[in-house]
Amino acid sequence: MRIVDQRALPEARIERDLESGEAVADAIRTLQVRGAPLIGIAAAMGLVAGTRELRAVPREPFLARVHQLAELLGATRPTAVNLRWALDRMVRCATATPVGGGGGGAAIWERLQAEATAIWEEDRAMCRRIGEAGLPLVPEGAKLLTHCNAGALATGGIGTALAPIYLAHDAGRRVEVFVDETRPVLQGARLTAWELVHAGIPCTVIADGAAGSLMRQAKVDLVIVGADRIAANGDFANKIGTYSLAVLALHHGVPFYCAAPSSTIDVALADGAGIPIEQRAPDEVKSVAGRLIAPAEAAALNPAFDVTPARYVTAFITDRGVEHPPFRDGARR
Amino acid sequence: MRIVDQRALPEARIERDLESGEAVADAIRTLQVRGAPLIGIAAAMGLVAGTRELRAVPREPFLARVHQLAELLGATRPTAVNLRWALDRMVRCATATPVGGGGGGAAIWERLQAEATAIWEEDRAMCRRIGEAGLPLVPEGAKLLTHCNAGALATGGIGTALAPIYLAHDAGRRVEVFVDETRPVLQGARLTAWELVHAGIPCTVIADGAAGSLMRQAKVDLVIVGADRIAANGDFANKIGTYSLAVLALHHGVPFYCAAPSSTIDVALADGAGIPIEQRAPDEVKSVAGRLIAPAEAAALNPAFDVTPARYVTAFITDRGVEHPPFRDGARR
Repeated sequence: MRIVDQRALPEARIERDLESGEAVADAIRTLQVRGAPLIGIAAAMGLVAGTRELRAVPREPFLARVHQLAELLGATRPTAVNLRWALDRMVRCATATPVGGGGGGAAIWERLQAEATAIWEEDRAMCRRIGEAGLPLVPEGAKLLTHCNAGALATGGIGTALAPIYLAHDAGRRVEVFVDETRPVLQGARLTAWELVHAGIPCTVIADGAAGSLMRQAKVDLVIVGADRIAANGDFANKIGTYSLAVLALHHGVPFYCAAPSSTIDVALADGAGIPIEQRAPDEVKSVAGRLIAPAEAAALNPAFDVTPARYVTAFITDRGVEHPPFRDGARR
Repeated sequence: MRIVDQRALPEARIERDLESGEAVADAIRTLQVRGAPLIGIAAAMGLVAGTRELRAVPREPFLARVHQLAELLGATRPTAVNLRWALDRMVRCATATPVGGGGGGAAIWERLQAEATAIWEEDRAMCRRIGEAGLPLVPEGAKLLTHCNAGALATGGIGTALAPIYLAHDAGRRVEVFVDETRPVLQGARLTAWELVHAGIPCTVIADGAAGSLMRQAKVDLVIVGADRIAANGDFANKIGTYSLAVLALHHGVPFYCAAPSSTIDVALADGAGIPIEQRAPDEVKSVAGRLIAPAEAAALNPAFDVTPARYVTAFITDRGVEHPPFRDGARR
């Protein structure tokens, strides 16, 4: 399993081969691989990589290892539901392997590999459908604002929030994207701007604090963001800063869209209050590129995500189309 | 004239001696010295430093140099009115020096030196009065949020936005301060947190995008920010990101105060539309601590300030007390 270490972008493109489930878990935990859909795919492939050497093992110990690895991979990041969703699907696939006719490690592993590939391919297809569903919302000359990275680097395809933008660009529409740099990890400046520059789409990086002022000057036609988990009522978690953007968009009458694959919808949660919010190390806020930018003695708060209530969302753009909550079903299982 | 180079904080405390008006202008332009009140003081002292060697020069060429230096210093940063205000006051002081009885360079210089000292001392006194006016707004247990640095490092005294916090702490009240890191130049993380840590006041640095989420969780009792220029109707310019905070505060019913010396009020401007907004180099956004954090090819927008309309402001805290616009007079001249 080979990944691009996203921590090094845009300065360097470093590829890493991950040979074990533990290595994949570490890559997810340390944000080498990030983005809700992509960590689902990576976890599924981590299960495959982590059981590859056990193909000679009989059914029960093989399944025990699958459960153990799924536990490990699932605990890396709590907020994005896609991770849990992909792992549940992989575990179900493993345990559903028929017992008769060679239902040992080798047979289960073959099925896991096919399932992980299917998850990836389905994600790629879902990204395209999100793009097609969102395309009518991105007219000629549109000035968009996005937060964090919900592009190709966050998915197995052309992204979620960026998918309609890519398709609008492909369709010859002139679009312009303001990119929140997205502190503390700077996924906007480092990843989204990198993607857009390489795609030839005009983009302008801004400090997160500049978004409100841009909206006040009527320089933003619409906001599109991704999601890490969407509750049944439409409340959703996304990168810290998303909620502020939603309030600003509402205040200025700017349409605010949330784009995500249906695997992000967690119908088990009634509302956003139940979404676990990952708290990351204070040093991510207190330092940039390894250099301390705040006094060592100062405290820092580093929630990776915030929750935006459904009422701020103009519409959800999913692989099923433009949708409005409540959601009765999430991903196809 | 000796300054602390604020670019190096909090990592290092570097003092610099500035011997010429040009050196002072450069220090202001490059943010070695920053903060609306402090750049007014620095510019006044720059006029003194820049004319020190001309004391033997007759009146007219001395005054010509004063005008020329005032022009140079006044052009360094366009938004903060305190800079222009302090320089105007210095130029008036110089030209008002009586012609008779040795009204040459030496006499004018002596008066300029006294005037610069007076500007500094008045600023120190204004900071204290701002603190006293704002003190009743900071009750025991208050959780405050501030943006940028409007503390001792931005003034000749105990700050503007931080002055009531310092006095509340001195009065034995338990207060807690959330500090917006304030990208792109990180004055919050680098300077405000540094000040508060050294004063023993509990503070927590947050990414700018986290403020809305904190308010939604009712973790912020009030917001206090400084100002670089206040128009007659109460619209004011302050560090980029202030306007977003003001919208968020209004949306969540959190009181939003603007603290500034009366020298920040520019009654010549009817409203905020007339405030010139300094656009700084894109590289301040695209890099942190000298390291590029966005693709070199990406554009970036870097307005140093935004304008917050008066209607978002609960009250202004000035050296004259807690005030509400319209303002009929600005600084005492």
